[in-house]
Amino acid sequence: MYKDVTLPQGFQCAGISAGIKAGGVKDMALIFSSVPAVSAGVFTTNQVCAAPVKVCRQHLQHGVARAIVMNSGIANACTGSEGLVAARDMAAEAARVVGCDPQEIFVCSTGKIGPQLPLDKIISGISKLFEEAVRADVQQTAEAMMTTDTRPKVSFSAFGIDGKAVRIVGFAKGAGMIEPNMATMLSYITTDASVDQHAWQNALKKAVDASFNRISVDGDQSTNDTVLALANGEAGNKVLTEESPEWTVFCAELEKVCFELAMMIVHDGEGADKFVTVNVSGAESAGDAELAARAVANSMLNKTAWAGTYPDWGRIMDAIGYSKARVVEEKVDIHYDDTHAVCGGMRSDIPQEALIKVVSQTDFAININLNLGEGSATVYTCNCTEEYVRINY
Amino acid sequence: MYKDVTLPQGFQCAGISAGIKAGGVKDMALIFSSVPAVSAGVFTTNQVCAAPVKVCRQHLQHGVARAIVMNSGIANACTGSEGLVAARDMAAEAARVVGCDPQEIFVCSTGKIGPQLPLDKIISGISKLFEEAVRADVQQTAEAMMTTDTRPKVSFSAFGIDGKAVRIVGFAKGAGMIEPNMATMLSYITTDASVDQHAWQNALKKAVDASFNRISVDGDQSTNDTVLALANGEAGNKVLTEESPEWTVFCAELEKVCFELAMMIVHDGEGADKFVTVNVSGAESAGDAELAARAVANSMLNKTAWAGTYPDWGRIMDAIGYSKARVVEEKVDIHYDDTHAVCGGMRSDIPQEALIKVVSQTDFAININLNLGEGSATVYTCNCTEEYVRINY
Repeated sequence: MYKDVTLPQGFQCAGISAGIKAGGVKDMALIFSSVPAVSAGVFTTNQVCAAPVKVCRQHLQHGVARAIVMNSGIANACTGSEGLVAARDMAAEAARVVGCDPQEIFVCSTGKIGPQLPLDKIISGISKLFEEAVRADVQQTAEAMMTTDTRPKVSFSAFGIDGKAVRIVGFAKGAGMIEPNMATMLSYITTDASVDQHAWQNALKKAVDASFNRISVDGDQSTNDTVLALANGEAGNKVLTEESPEWTVFCAELEKVCFELAMMIVHDGEGADKFVTVNVSGAESAGDAELAARAVANSMLNKTAWAGTYPDWGRIMDAIGYSKARVVEEKVDIHYDDTHAVCGGMRSDIPQEALIKVVSQTDFAININLNLGEGSATVYTCNCTEEYVRINY
Repeated sequence: MYKDVTLPQGFQCAGISAGIKAGGVKDMALIFSSVPAVSAGVFTTNQVCAAPVKVCRQHLQHGVARAIVMNSGIANACTGSEGLVAARDMAAEAARVVGCDPQEIFVCSTGKIGPQLPLDKIISGISKLFEEAVRADVQQTAEAMMTTDTRPKVSFSAFGIDGKAVRIVGFAKGAGMIEPNMATMLSYITTDASVDQHAWQNALKKAVDASFNRISVDGDQSTNDTVLALANGEAGNKVLTEESPEWTVFCAELEKVCFELAMMIVHDGEGADKFVTVNVSGAESAGDAELAARAVANSMLNKTAWAGTYPDWGRIMDAIGYSKARVVEEKVDIHYDDTHAVCGGMRSDIPQEALIKVVSQTDFAININLNLGEGSATVYTCNCTEEYVRINY
């Protein structure tokens, strides 16, 4: 599927089985830049955060990095000082192989909270990763990141910056716990563009807000969420800053790559088989619009109604009503795609069958107009099926 | 089951089929006091609220009431001015039969949001209810209140106040959407005690906070939540005020009745088969304790883990971490009942089997100590099974 995706210049990657997961399933991945790359990162806001997140936050201060090493299967969260030492050892071993400062290595873990990392397996996994990296197998790298994901997630873009060919390639893992703020989600963005570090961090933060932070799978948030981005300058363009004429184009391409990954994550929501876009317009503020959209997108009653092909707009009215957004019941209009469901807070005269037709689709939009102001927001979500409950048993 | 429960003196009740629901299912209930009763009420905080809630809020200003008339099947929510007229007509018809001011009638509806009430059926149902009321069939009354409930819910208490025998009898319907603030929940409390109106309102508010507002089924909140309480003074005691020596006892009995009803509701959570008590202690404040307890109780990942008999304390750490309560990971202790699961933010050395034994039970507690202060709170919740998803299709 992604076997022939070409990484940006100067990048290598690998995905292998290190024996952390049973049955030879791939469970470690590497992204490596042959030259130092300018780094950026966005992390979970959960007060309980994994050891590798703590290490990444420190290493991000260094400003440049050479590699990202990750494992799936064990989250290295709630593992105390032993876990922190393990995360640092993981970085140190990769640094030893590369021959760089450990601060130039990012480490990530995802999987079960509680157990300590099997450090011997991690250490031999790291050697194996660097041996494989020259093959730059994007597909295997993306597969090694997966936990309850049903498919690997890769997105890419190629474009020109002052006459040089630039590429952005992104990897992600997602599935459950995606809301709020990109829970149990890992994403790595690579580019060969040359970018100022401060500008790169700002661009990443903005792209994450417009993509990963717009999706909701089950309303929970994890201890390990991390988005890391490396820009190694191998394309040879003039260093991009926020003042560069090409800055807007570059940011748009970055956002596109992040947005595509975010959409792949929500499409692959645990047990989900419907993709739902919740648009709120006419709110008193953009913040209010977001509150209302998130309340609708996170409501279990809405998610199960969509699973049952049941166009229960009453549950949408209910959710916007208990959201902290200002709502005047009599002003609310709701469309399912273009089909008018609620008019002035009451049922429109569109027959129920027309609404059922919309929610029968695997991809539809709930368009809510609060008719109070100019604020608008969009959140992407999925339905909740019995399968979701089974996966999380 | 509740057939022989005796109502407080001067009260009658009935539950009948008025043809709102299909198949002759009971769908209207009446609670009637033969003399004017001092009234109290607590309502949903949802900005989108049902027409009968609007009418009840107005009628509560009147301070005394004679009857509560309710229907199940249709919520009379999002029904605009037509719905408001219908709710007022429902009250007016009951007032006509009783021969009182319409302000002395409370009306409630629960069920589907959107459709208008079938007023002809409601009107003839009201006549039938008053004909039946003399039989005071508590069981049938509670049954007529049910929507997705699997069993009727009645609680009662009898005690002495200055030498007079006093009774409190409460009815409730619950099931899904119980959090926050008692969503899709109706409860009616009757007593023959003589109580000052202001004191009665305060007592009810306090009892609701300690009972119905402590339970969580699916994190949603409805448009129709209502708790109404009538005290008709037929017991002949001296009027109770907040200064009465018996006040504390009286409030404790009221709270007990409300608490029992709340426990029945959470035990009967949609599709649920496990009852979980979430205790948080050692928080910086009671408010923080409540935030942490609610985050754990509402987490779909926790509810599904409990359904799967999976003692995943990592999901509990995760939930308290993203709650707005202050948490210091390294200080957190968690017990499943008395079994130590997390010690200083990390896995204790208790074997997993011991935790599995606890979550295999149909009733267990999650005891979380944040070890930061003196704040504590308890929230009652249930697991989330595949059946929950099926019910809400």
